Amino acid sequence: MKALWLENNKTSLREILQSDKPGEALIKIRKAGICSTDLELVKGYYPYTGVLGHEFVGEVVSAPDASWVGQRVVGEINAVCGKCESCLSGRPTHCESRTVLGIANRDGVFAEYTTLPVENLHRVPDSVPDEMAVFTEPLAAALEIQQQIQIKPTDHVLLVGAGRLGQLVAQTLALTGCDLHVLVRHAHPKALLATRGIKTIAEDEIQPRRWDIVVEATGSPAGFDIARKAIRPRGTLVMKSTYAGELSINFSPLVVDEITIVGSRCGPFAPALRLLERREVDPTVLISAQYKLGEALKAFDHAAQPGVLKVLIEM
Amino acid sequence: MKALWLENNKTSLREILQSDKPGEALIKIRKAGICSTDLELVKGYYPYTGVLGHEFVGEVVSAPDASWVGQRVVGEINAVCGKCESCLSGRPTHCESRTVLGIANRDGVFAEYTTLPVENLHRVPDSVPDEMAVFTEPLAAALEIQQQIQIKPTDHVLLVGAGRLGQLVAQTLALTGCDLHVLVRHAHPKALLATRGIKTIAEDEIQPRRWDIVVEATGSPAGFDIARKAIRPRGTLVMKSTYAGELSINFSPLVVDEITIVGSRCGPFAPALRLLERREVDPTVLISAQYKLGEALKAFDHAAQPGVLKVLIEM
Repeated sequence: MKALWLENNKTSLREILQSDKPGEALIKIRKAGICSTDLELVKGYYPYTGVLGHEFVGEVVSAPDASWVGQRVVGEINAVCGKCESCLSGRPTHCESRTVLGIANRDGVFAEYTTLPVENLHRVPDSVPDEMAVFTEPLAAALEIQQQIQIKPTDHVLLVGAGRLGQLVAQTLALTGCDLHVLVRHAHPKALLATRGIKTIAEDEIQPRRWDIVVEATGSPAGFDIARKAIRPRGTLVMKSTYAGELSINFSPLVVDEITIVGSRCGPFAPALRLLERREVDPTVLISAQYKLGEALKAFDHAAQPGVLKVLIEM
Repeated sequence: MKALWLENNKTSLREILQSDKPGEALIKIRKAGICSTDLELVKGYYPYTGVLGHEFVGEVVSAPDASWVGQRVVGEINAVCGKCESCLSGRPTHCESRTVLGIANRDGVFAEYTTLPVENLHRVPDSVPDEMAVFTEPLAAALEIQQQIQIKPTDHVLLVGAGRLGQLVAQTLALTGCDLHVLVRHAHPKALLATRGIKTIAEDEIQPRRWDIVVEATGSPAGFDIARKAIRPRGTLVMKSTYAGELSINFSPLVVDEITIVGSRCGPFAPALRLLERREVDPTVLISAQYKLGEALKAFDHAAQPGVLKVLIEM
């Protein structure tokens, strides 16, 4: 089958053997999305060799449980052991021997087919079209914030960064009723927020030490710096991005101000699908372009351009 | 009056005018304790000029409300405005225009007298002797951890560092029933924990990625590093120390592991006094030496020696 392969920081389109893991579902990919993590993997942020991609919607071709065959599905990206302390403590996304779709020891979805354990699959409601369903994974990641911390309707919340993930974070945070402001630089992401009535804010308008919750979604030390200055004493700073390299921080003021910092990664799929089904969020406005799998290299070039949001790959 | 004065990183015993702020209680100091913050202030960790010291027990000599006169008291160290957003939001210890006893814009307690607003004072129960009461402030700081995060009786808790503050943190954490282990290097602090049945652990015995809660109380980057390696995914790392200078951290693994980091500073006095009254904790075992105010410079030299716990100054 055709697949986008990453090896030694080089991507290439290859013909590879169709993976068919015994005991797992074989899924024909319909659409897949390029995420910032994919771009970082190409840059070598984390060593990975194999098929890239982890955001997808597809159709089950075969499965140990035949009732899955023919179902349109999305899939959780962490394939877990079910036996380690993390799994047994209800933290399966932190499984100590997990493989991660297109990220760690498991071929991803920029390919004609992928495989996943059936436990990872979620049926997509008929009313949710492919171009929405393909956003389930990043939407779940956005919802992980509400899964980890309480956001009160009266909270003043600042979101720093409104890129691919930030847009979904903004849409879901807005559902809480909180007083949300988003720091965003590029015109297009800003306009997208405006059409949903989500307030944006300029950097020099951000009142220092005033925000109950700040979500850092830029992945840049400059973004962290802005977030850190904005947070009020005893406020909560959610880190929704990973950072390349070390981040040097003066920790003492964080202790004096009793700040809570929360790292946030993968989230729950079921609520993401519920929000899509009820049209409480609309991720399709993020779509900047769609490419065929054969043009995947071009799709990556496009996705890497500044201000570009979601680039999809169709199979 | 006689006082220990800090100016340009130099301490000296001086005769200064007895401070007598209108509207505040005048307190005759009975005993005061030297804290790591005092030693850091002398090193220039934070610019401060004035009388050092913030841990004390004393007797009210005069007060706007006469019912306080003659009372034996301890005092909260943050003198607050009552009007700013932090004060009005129930976070008075984070008052934006606070002065802090012996730390910021307010003369401290290594002196014959000090002043504080009566709102800061707590009566010491008769059954709590001076050498216990003088520990109320650091004991309250230890309890701030339980004020900020839930510690479940089933939690595996690692305390890194058992110095002046760490010993009190250990004693109070042990009261939760949690599975507590303390990393401690010096023989004497280790022996103190052993006499209370608190388990200690060697660095090479600390299982990585296994601890639900880790409290960092060393104030050293090496301590942070140990804490960071010990914490489990989705665990909570409590920062109970400030750090001199910048701490360089690779933040991405903290995001991937969804770690929560909580800065922790001043705590509640009333529960600290309750625990002292009920003898649930015994801070007096920490006392390494007592000096008269006239020997305060010698007391500081003593307190700065490795492995020394609490040095008291008597007036």
